[in-house]
Amino acid sequence: MSEEHSKSVRNYLIDLQNRLKSEVINADPSVILHQDKWNRSKGGGGESCVFTGNQMEKGGVNFSDVKGDRLPASATKNRPHLIGVPFRAMGVSVVFHPDNPFAPTAHANVRYFCAKNKKDIHEWWFGGGFDLTPYYGFEEDCVFWHKKAREACSEIGQNYYQEFKRACDEYFYLPHRNEPRGIGGVFFDDFNQLGFKNCFSFLQRVGNNFLDAYFPIFNKRKNIPFVAVQKDFQQYRRGRYVEFNLIYDRGTLFGLQSKGRTESILMSLPPKVKWVYNWSPEQGTQEADLYNNFLKVRDWV
Amino acid sequence: MSEEHSKSVRNYLIDLQNRLKSEVINADPSVILHQDKWNRSKGGGGESCVFTGNQMEKGGVNFSDVKGDRLPASATKNRPHLIGVPFRAMGVSVVFHPDNPFAPTAHANVRYFCAKNKKDIHEWWFGGGFDLTPYYGFEEDCVFWHKKAREACSEIGQNYYQEFKRACDEYFYLPHRNEPRGIGGVFFDDFNQLGFKNCFSFLQRVGNNFLDAYFPIFNKRKNIPFVAVQKDFQQYRRGRYVEFNLIYDRGTLFGLQSKGRTESILMSLPPKVKWVYNWSPEQGTQEADLYNNFLKVRDWV
Repeated sequence: MSEEHSKSVRNYLIDLQNRLKSEVINADPSVILHQDKWNRSKGGGGESCVFTGNQMEKGGVNFSDVKGDRLPASATKNRPHLIGVPFRAMGVSVVFHPDNPFAPTAHANVRYFCAKNKKDIHEWWFGGGFDLTPYYGFEEDCVFWHKKAREACSEIGQNYYQEFKRACDEYFYLPHRNEPRGIGGVFFDDFNQLGFKNCFSFLQRVGNNFLDAYFPIFNKRKNIPFVAVQKDFQQYRRGRYVEFNLIYDRGTLFGLQSKGRTESILMSLPPKVKWVYNWSPEQGTQEADLYNNFLKVRDWV
Repeated sequence: MSEEHSKSVRNYLIDLQNRLKSEVINADPSVILHQDKWNRSKGGGGESCVFTGNQMEKGGVNFSDVKGDRLPASATKNRPHLIGVPFRAMGVSVVFHPDNPFAPTAHANVRYFCAKNKKDIHEWWFGGGFDLTPYYGFEEDCVFWHKKAREACSEIGQNYYQEFKRACDEYFYLPHRNEPRGIGGVFFDDFNQLGFKNCFSFLQRVGNNFLDAYFPIFNKRKNIPFVAVQKDFQQYRRGRYVEFNLIYDRGTLFGLQSKGRTESILMSLPPKVKWVYNWSPEQGTQEADLYNNFLKVRDWV
């Protein structure tokens, strides 16, 4: 039973990875693909696919399916009794860093965990979500993004959208900056309360809707003319992305703690980043508009 | 007694900060100074001094003297009984990121902690050290650097140099990269075993020798002609610096945990950084030489 479930999740994830790859190539035919299949000495492996192109400055679509002897603490917040037991974890992780500062950075992750508890019973759960990090704010993009997020939850109910949107706002937050990372989306973890079939179906909606939400925005913004100070601002804001991923992100921590493949874990880091001491935008500028109107927790739909 | 000690350490630290500032201005007269005095709502404050110039692309020399109600866990490895008690911490933190890729990045820190334990007795200790992160290796610079490190330990004894050099190699190590951050130097913490007078005298030698060790190297390398791929390599390697500081560095963690001033804590991050997926240097190049001969634990003197 558990094997069958793992197999169907695995098949979905591999298919999702393939569809994401095709979409990137369609949206930016200039991309060069760096594909690496890798194996872990402790069991399992994956395929990293990193893109570098003129419009998709850096993108990564990673699939992994790993086994381990000891579930790391970072893998489960609500199941401390499973820390240290054998586990299997599979997922697809996606990060897109467009070249154009008017096109937002996006992140998505869908994952499935199973672990055998000390009574020899399998426990399983899904996690994942998607969130958007604009550099210049467009209301219509944020509304569109959150409509796709809400739609992904429509089968399991509107309350779940509210809950997972709030979880996303809470998770993608930088306390040391007093700032959200971006405009959010949905985020869920330890999710199994509706039974395998419904939960898996939800996971697929999340993966599929991410794809349907991101590319229309990317395609609409990827050719807007921009100037050097706007590229600078994007590179400055990317610094926040690095800070979040290296200081707070549980996925990154899980990868490093479980001795994952470093280059696959850190493919999420932006290609070029700037840190400028004590910088803040002048009031009245487009850059200040991002801080004032988009880096705030808002109800977008 | 404790007040007197704190006062003399504070005076030394402020003097060291001033001397470091003067040295930066002498070495790169193009630098612009960004000086900020700041206060913490919970007590204490400091002065951040950040430089941006043609040769010193970004440098920071920070002084802080803060009080807190609860000592954070990151402040002491060997004194867990003090976690959560009132404390005072003062120090000078320095990071230099030169523009020229042939000039190394350097870091130094000297600090003094005191805390009242649950029996109402003051405990105090010093910590600090300095370490060097070259992008292109010069044997003579590494030997000179470590001679200055050994010299700083000469009064307290050669064994301390060996111990603190090893501690530096162990601390400035990136497990996820299987790489040292650079060529090390000295690193010490929880240091009080020789009494206040000797320990404080050692701290001063460390601070003074950092200054005497770094600027001759910087001045020798700051004008070497370089090409774009060498600048690229420097920016790529700076990524490791960011990874270390945000994932592992206890000073950064202490700053963020004790709700320090974010811009002062993160002034250590390099100005421009690149992440390139799965890159490694071609054998036989100068870049490979760094990995093969300098990013190894070695006895330099």
